[in-house]
Amino acid sequence: MVESIRVLIWNEFRHERQQEKVRSVYPDGLHQAIGGQIAAPDLSIAYATLDEPEHGLTEERLAQTDVLLWWGHCAHAEVQDEIVERVQRRVLAGMGLIVLHSGHFAKIFKKLMGTDCSLLWRHCAEKERVWTVSPGHPIAKDVPESFVIPHSEMYGEHFGIPQDGEIIFISWYEGGNVFRSGVSFLRGAGRIFYFAPGHETYPIYYDPVVSRIIRNAVRWAAPSHFLAPRTTHTPVAVEEIRSSAVN
Amino acid sequence: MVESIRVLIWNEFRHERQQEKVRSVYPDGLHQAIGGQIAAPDLSIAYATLDEPEHGLTEERLAQTDVLLWWGHCAHAEVQDEIVERVQRRVLAGMGLIVLHSGHFAKIFKKLMGTDCSLLWRHCAEKERVWTVSPGHPIAKDVPESFVIPHSEMYGEHFGIPQDGEIIFISWYEGGNVFRSGVSFLRGAGRIFYFAPGHETYPIYYDPVVSRIIRNAVRWAAPSHFLAPRTTHTPVAVEEIRSSAVN
Amino acid sequence: MVESIRVLIWNEFRHERQQEKVRSVYPDGLHQAIGGQIAAPDLSIAYATLDEPEHGLTEERLAQTDVLLWWGHCAHAEVQDEIVERVQRRVLAGMGLIVLHSGHFAKIFKKLMGTDCSLLWRHCAEKERVWTVSPGHPIAKDVPESFVIPHSEMYGEHFGIPQDGEIIFISWYEGGNVFRSGVSFLRGAGRIFYFAPGHETYPIYYDPVVSRIIRNAVRWAAPSHFLAPRTTHTPVAVEEIRSSAVN
Amino acid sequence: MVESIRVLIWNEFRHERQQEKVRSVYPDGLHQAIGGQIAAPDLSIAYATLDEPEHGLTEERLAQTDVLLWWGHCAHAEVQDEIVERVQRRVLAGMGLIVLHSGHFAKIFKKLMGTDCSLLWRHCAEKERVWTVSPGHPIAKDVPESFVIPHSEMYGEHFGIPQDGEIIFISWYEGGNVFRSGVSFLRGAGRIFYFAPGHETYPIYYDPVVSRIIRNAVRWAAPSHFLAPRTTHTPVAVEEIRSSAVN
Repeated sequence: MVESIRVLIWNEFRHERQQEKVRSVYPDGLHQAIGGQIAAPDLSIAYATLDEPEHGLTEERLAQTDVLLWWGHCAHAEVQDEIVERVQRRVLAGMGLIVLHSGHFAKIFKKLMGTDCSLLWRHCAEKERVWTVSPGHPIAKDVPESFVIPHSEMYGEHFGIPQDGEIIFISWYEGGNVFRSGVSFLRGAGRIFYFAPGHETYPIYYDPVVSRIIRNAVRWAAPSHFLAPRTTHTPVAVEEIRSSAVN
Repeated sequence: MVESIRVLIWNEFRHERQQEKVRSVYPDGLHQAIGGQIAAPDLSIAYATLDEPEHGLTEERLAQTDVLLWWGHCAHAEVQDEIVERVQRRVLAGMGLIVLHSGHFAKIFKKLMGTDCSLLWRHCAEKERVWTVSPGHPIAKDVPESFVIPHSEMYGEHFGIPQDGEIIFISWYEGGNVFRSGVSFLRGAGRIFYFAPGHETYPIYYDPVVSRIIRNAVRWAAPSHFLAPRTTHTPVAVEEIRSSAVN
Repeated sequence: MVESIRVLIWNEFRHERQQEKVRSVYPDGLHQAIGGQIAAPDLSIAYATLDEPEHGLTEERLAQTDVLLWWGHCAHAEVQDEIVERVQRRVLAGMGLIVLHSGHFAKIFKKLMGTDCSLLWRHCAEKERVWTVSPGHPIAKDVPESFVIPHSEMYGEHFGIPQDGEIIFISWYEGGNVFRSGVSFLRGAGRIFYFAPGHETYPIYYDPVVSRIIRNAVRWAAPSHFLAPRTTHTPVAVEEIRSSAVN
Repeated sequence: MVESIRVLIWNEFRHERQQEKVRSVYPDGLHQAIGGQIAAPDLSIAYATLDEPEHGLTEERLAQTDVLLWWGHCAHAEVQDEIVERVQRRVLAGMGLIVLHSGHFAKIFKKLMGTDCSLLWRHCAEKERVWTVSPGHPIAKDVPESFVIPHSEMYGEHFGIPQDGEIIFISWYEGGNVFRSGVSFLRGAGRIFYFAPGHETYPIYYDPVVSRIIRNAVRWAAPSHFLAPRTTHTPVAVEEIRSSAVN
């Protein structure tokens, strides 16, 4: 099995540098806060941000990554298409991908889903209650039947994702909405988990249950092995062919 | 295609005869109320109840049925196992099945799901808001983004169903719960739809949106064709076998 | 309820104009041959090709289309990205999409799948036997348990598609390969069917079983309704919010 | 996280005692042969057979089991229904289940699937070629693109299982058939893997690739945690209810 899971937390890291309100909650960036919260002996955590060369997502870097976490919000459009395709290839080869909150609109998530990934949102600090609907899933390990996020941004249905997502969490909002807030997908050899709770001005990533879910998700998404590229697309026949004489 | 869809609405029909409170809402039985509400020119509606011989579900009757609706609550245990198996066979051959409200615990639903189908419930007439999460699904045709059932029995997660159900509706409850309240499944050649809203003491089945959903579901669940039994399980080879000499 | 299904058959239409071998089999183009074969009173069939303005896929044209068939092979790269996105939007809003043979590598199919859609192939006119693995599916109506395509291009596993495809056909090849040759997907409000049999130099599209499958698929993929665009992404609360005072 | 996976290999163990032909291949029973082949430091392997009290599947025994392997063939009907229900409950609570070959017709498999699980078969020692269609799946780790079983019983489509199975292997048979020969399902908290290759008179369970697949499947099916029973089905409201005055 995997000795230590190589985790890379990616953050666009703009809000924190531009807005005092965000910086006051996540002074070292959302990525550092999340990394600090999910730290565990079996996880080897590194970081990358949008403004690094190649967004910090070089081929070499990805080749050393088992699970990638993605936090983006206001700068989705600045992520280069060729790097999105690079990340996609790595996911299809086995790398886990955890997409957080507003990452539902990240190019990489939309590319892997094939749908518009749109949703409703409302920003008024309302109460969110998260229900565990798949309590036996590894991501729900040690997670209570339901838990409250006192002040949250509402993300509401309908959510434009494919129907094959395994629903692990559904959120209830005080304002009357519901949302499939924790959903897992398999694409190629990669495991993908989308998790809605989290926002740049709420301290949600310091919540111990939220941290546990993300840590569980990292362990669940870690690949057993990576898929090697095909050696050929045009193989010779492995069994004798006798009916092709007329070709 | 199908000229007219042959619909059979099955009701255990006990509450209505035993409790004045239920009879006052559904004087002719839930089955008659539902049938009256969903009536349409393309539907040919018939009824069957638990206390008829063979529960009204003879082989002949089922052979004449395209879509079966199921309402049961207090007498699930009285449904004979062999008739449950008969219904299952007909569903696997193509008959649609619409399971309503407390039918989540009907033998036929549990048998087709393979899981425990358990859930939470609370009976205090709280408000339910139903969200359409799959608005393009045929069952959601002409159904609003969300609609309210003023007084409902809460059905809450987690709901013990397989994860391959296509989620069409999710309900929000005033008391803080959520529920996958409209879910469709494919089993064999049969299409199955579970729909939670509805209760014997609330007039929910008179709600025009609820009626529209059930009518849509009947049309969606109607088979294009029924599956004929296999002619053999032990076919001769269709291609020449040359490697079996050693057998 | 749809009066007549508006079908648009799209073909890149290059092989037929450039290669005598292809023209001898499909003199008026693959699109015309397919259209002629699947013709039925409930289908209203039109055509579009790559070299028309906007590839014949204007907004107006798509707005008049219920089901789009796609045949492309050597010119996938010439399809403009913005038109691919336009088709994707229409599929997510409800338009059915039938992707034929080498269309597995069309931009539109890869975009909707989110995976690499790669496969193995071998071109030596070997025998293919197609098995119906989901005989109760509407697409398999009146299709035998298995049928033979005497000379076919082999398409083999593994096939890089998402696992939520409903498998309707699996092919056996004389040379020892297998392939999920008929698979359906739901994406947004759209129904998608990929069907592998077919090639520009074999008369496969004149096979009556193949034609029946494509015709069945068109009927299955026709939408019950189209999804209207959202009126807003930022709704006001539909239930009273009392816990947001601190925001 | 699991220190050692507690594996229980169940065998009806009748053929081996009654037929010399079977005994000559599996002298100590199929269960012992399989156990010997998949042995590994992280697996703690035990055995149970049909003719033990309670079929060797007491509540206590199951409570000590992480993954159960099931081999049955001629005596499916002798397995007591209440023990089947006990195994089902344990699977839904998290226990992995590996169903082998003719176990497709075992009561426990049919109960968990909800479908008829029927298939075609032909017993003439023909060649089977198994293709890996989901090479990135943990069960396919270190398994080649395809491998040959020189003499096998044919199991053919259509196979009456739900469509949500993740297809990991598809088999090609010399006689012209195909089969989804390795399929995984999630039901409740349990992971289920059906694997077709294997027969009581062929030495298939001594094949190192087959053994690797079964060992991989055991590791994949091992639960991260078991699901505790619900504490209540009728919870009080977690949010204030104000609209129920009329109840």
